[in-house]
Amino acid sequence: MLGDDTVPGRLSTKRRIKRFTDLPSPSTRSVTFRHSPTAIRRSTWLVADTTETDLDTERRTDTETEPQRSFHGVDVGLLEGDEDLVGLLLEATATDREGSGDGPELAPDVDVKANPTLRDGDILVISSKVVSLAEGRYVDLEAVPVSSRADRIADVTGIDPREVELILRESTVLGAIPIADIGPGVDRLEDHAVDPEAASAALESLPSLLVTFWNGRFCTNAGIDLSNSPGESATLLPADPNASARRIREEIRDRAGIEVAVIVADSELSYRGGSVDVAIGCAGIDPVDSNFGATDLFGTPKLGGVDLQADELAAASALLSGQAAERTPIVVARGLDYEVDDDVAVGTDSDLIRGGLWPVLKRTIQVKIADTVPIRVPFGVS
Amino acid sequence: MLGDDTVPGRLSTKRRIKRFTDLPSPSTRSVTFRHSPTAIRRSTWLVADTTETDLDTERRTDTETEPQRSFHGVDVGLLEGDEDLVGLLLEATATDREGSGDGPELAPDVDVKANPTLRDGDILVISSKVVSLAEGRYVDLEAVPVSSRADRIADVTGIDPREVELILRESTVLGAIPIADIGPGVDRLEDHAVDPEAASAALESLPSLLVTFWNGRFCTNAGIDLSNSPGESATLLPADPNASARRIREEIRDRAGIEVAVIVADSELSYRGGSVDVAIGCAGIDPVDSNFGATDLFGTPKLGGVDLQADELAAASALLSGQAAERTPIVVARGLDYEVDDDVAVGTDSDLIRGGLWPVLKRTIQVKIADTVPIRVPFGVS
Repeated sequence: MLGDDTVPGRLSTKRRIKRFTDLPSPSTRSVTFRHSPTAIRRSTWLVADTTETDLDTERRTDTETEPQRSFHGVDVGLLEGDEDLVGLLLEATATDREGSGDGPELAPDVDVKANPTLRDGDILVISSKVVSLAEGRYVDLEAVPVSSRADRIADVTGIDPREVELILRESTVLGAIPIADIGPGVDRLEDHAVDPEAASAALESLPSLLVTFWNGRFCTNAGIDLSNSPGESATLLPADPNASARRIREEIRDRAGIEVAVIVADSELSYRGGSVDVAIGCAGIDPVDSNFGATDLFGTPKLGGVDLQADELAAASALLSGQAAERTPIVVARGLDYEVDDDVAVGTDSDLIRGGLWPVLKRTIQVKIADTVPIRVPFGVS
Repeated sequence: MLGDDTVPGRLSTKRRIKRFTDLPSPSTRSVTFRHSPTAIRRSTWLVADTTETDLDTERRTDTETEPQRSFHGVDVGLLEGDEDLVGLLLEATATDREGSGDGPELAPDVDVKANPTLRDGDILVISSKVVSLAEGRYVDLEAVPVSSRADRIADVTGIDPREVELILRESTVLGAIPIADIGPGVDRLEDHAVDPEAASAALESLPSLLVTFWNGRFCTNAGIDLSNSPGESATLLPADPNASARRIREEIRDRAGIEVAVIVADSELSYRGGSVDVAIGCAGIDPVDSNFGATDLFGTPKLGGVDLQADELAAASALLSGQAAERTPIVVARGLDYEVDDDVAVGTDSDLIRGGLWPVLKRTIQVKIADTVPIRVPFGVS
C-alpha cells in the first residue's frame, strides 16, 4: 500500500535535517542543578556558589580524563544485623578529605584503594538487603507460627509455609507464578546457569513465586529474601524504605558533614525472564527526572521526559553490585545532575493502577471492536 | 500471632553473622572476563594476555582515582538521515591512540574535551533513534496512505490515522491506554511538567497510546517516534536491532580496529508513570549476566543471578542521554566485566509469555481458592 520507496528497512523519503550547529541554541530548558543552601555551604565539588548551573555548559567543559558519570562499589563487609550501617559506610569511604576537617578519621584496616572517598553530591545506592539487616528486619523462620491460611497456600504453591505466613503478613497476594511448571521460562533460566546442578536445586527449592502488592508496589514474595541469610532466616524489606533513606542521609550529614542523596534498591523480576534493580525508597533526590513538557530539538513538546531516574540509578548500580556474592551492597554514583529535594519519596503504583486499569480495558475493547468489525467506508482508501 | 520479639520494624531474633573476613574466600565463581583471541590481540586495556582474569582480583586493585564503572556521552551532532553513523562516531571519539597506529585521524573540528576516546572493551549504548535515522527508517507522514482499519482505530483513539497505519504495519496491537482519560496517571505526569502549557499540548497531541507487540517485545505505538523528527515525519524502530548492533560493531572493528560491544536502546513506558530505557538489540555482549545457580555468601544456590545487564546498561545510559534535547545519543560504558560473545542477541518475550501465561493464571486461581475457602484444620495453629 505504501510506495515503492517505503519497503521495510528503507522506509525513507529523504529529508534533510540540519546539523545541530546550524540550529538555534536550545532555550532556557530547566534541566539544571539546583541545591539547597546547605548543599552549597558544604559543597566541596561545586566551584561556583550560584544556585543554577547550566547542564549544557557543564557538559561541554568535561575533560577527557574526567568521566561524566562514575559508579564506585563500596565493600562494607557483611553485616551482623542491628549494626551501625552508616558507621561502617563512613569507615569504608573515609580518607583525609582535602579542605575539610570534619570528615571521619581513617580506620587503619580500611583498604582505601578498594573504596571511594565520599563527596558532597554523591548518590548512594544501597541494597535493601543491608538496610534490612541493619534495621533488624530479619526473622528466624523457626520462630514463625504458621496460620491455616498460610498452610493452604503453601500446599498449593510448594513454598515454605513459614515464608507464606511472612508474605501474607507483609503484603497482599495477587497471584502465583509456578516457576517449575513454566517450560520456556525455566528453559531460559537454565540457559543462564553457571552451575546446572545448583540451578536445578535452586529451582526445586522455590517451585513458585507469589505476585504481591507490597507498600503500594508490585513485587514477588513481598520482597522477602532467603538468600545471603545465615541458617534458616528470612530478610524482610525495610518497613518504610523512604524513611530508611532519609535516616541514612541525615545521619551521614550529621556525623560526617557530607551531603549525599540515598536510594534504597531492590531486585525485581522482569517478565523478560531475569531481574533488574529498581528504587524502593529515596531521599534527597527526586526519583523522577521531571522533564515533561520540555521541547525536543525542533521545539515540539514531548510526551516523554518523565524519566524514572531513581530506577535508572538502581539498575546502573546493579551492574556493580551483582546478585550473589559480590559483596558490594553500596554503590556511589557520582557526577549526576539532580535536584536536591527533601520533600520527595519513591511513590506507589496504587493510584495509577486503580485509576488507570478500567479506562485502559474500556479503550482496549473499543479499539478491538474498531479493528475487527468491518464498517462500510463510502470513499475508502483501501 | 508472632512472638513479641517480632513486631513490625524489629522482626528480629538476634543472629550473629560472621564478618566476611572470617569467611572462607569465595571459590572459583565464573564471573570472569573472557574475550576472543581477536580482543586479546587488539586489546590496549588488558595488561595480561591470560584468557581469564578474576573479577575479585581486579576489583581489589582498583585505585581511588580510577572509577570502577564510567559512562561518557558522545555528541555526534544531529543526523541528516541515511548517514554514516559509524563515521561520525569514530570522528567524534578519535584521538591519537597510544600504542596504536591504526586509529582514525583526529578531525580538526572535533572537541576532544567533550567526547571520550574509544577503547577496546568499551560498550556503546546507542539510542535506537539515531540507528533508525542512519538506516533511513523514517517516513514522511504525508506519504502514508491510510487504510480503513487504521481510520477506525484512529477514530477511537484520537491518534493520527497515518501513525496508526504505521503501527499496524509494524506490530500487533494488543490494547490502548487512553492517556487523556487516566486521571491519576495524568495528574502524576503533570506533577513532573517543567512547562505546564507545553505538557498540556503534548498530552492533547497524543490522547492515547497503543500497547503493541513488536519484534517479540511489548512496547507502545510500535516504538514509532514523532519527536525529534523534523516536520511531519515519523521514525520507526530499526527493522532488526540485533543486526544493527552487529553491523555497527563490525564496522568499528573493520574501520578503526577497536573491539567494542554495542547495545541499541529504546525508552519504554513503565506502569509507574514514567519511562526507563531498555535494550532492544545487542552485539558482542551477552544481554543476560548468566549467573543463575551461583551460590550466595553462605553457599546456597540462588534463584536469582539472571541479571538483564543489557537493560541495566540501557537504563544507566539514559541518565546521560536524556529524552529531549540532550544530544547525547551514544553513551560509552567503560569498565564493565562482560563476556564477549558473537552469538548472542537480545531475545524476545514470546516464548515466556506464551508458555508462562496459562500456568500463571491456573496457579493464581488455585492460590485464590486456597486463600479464601475455609477448610477444617484438626490441629490448627491459628
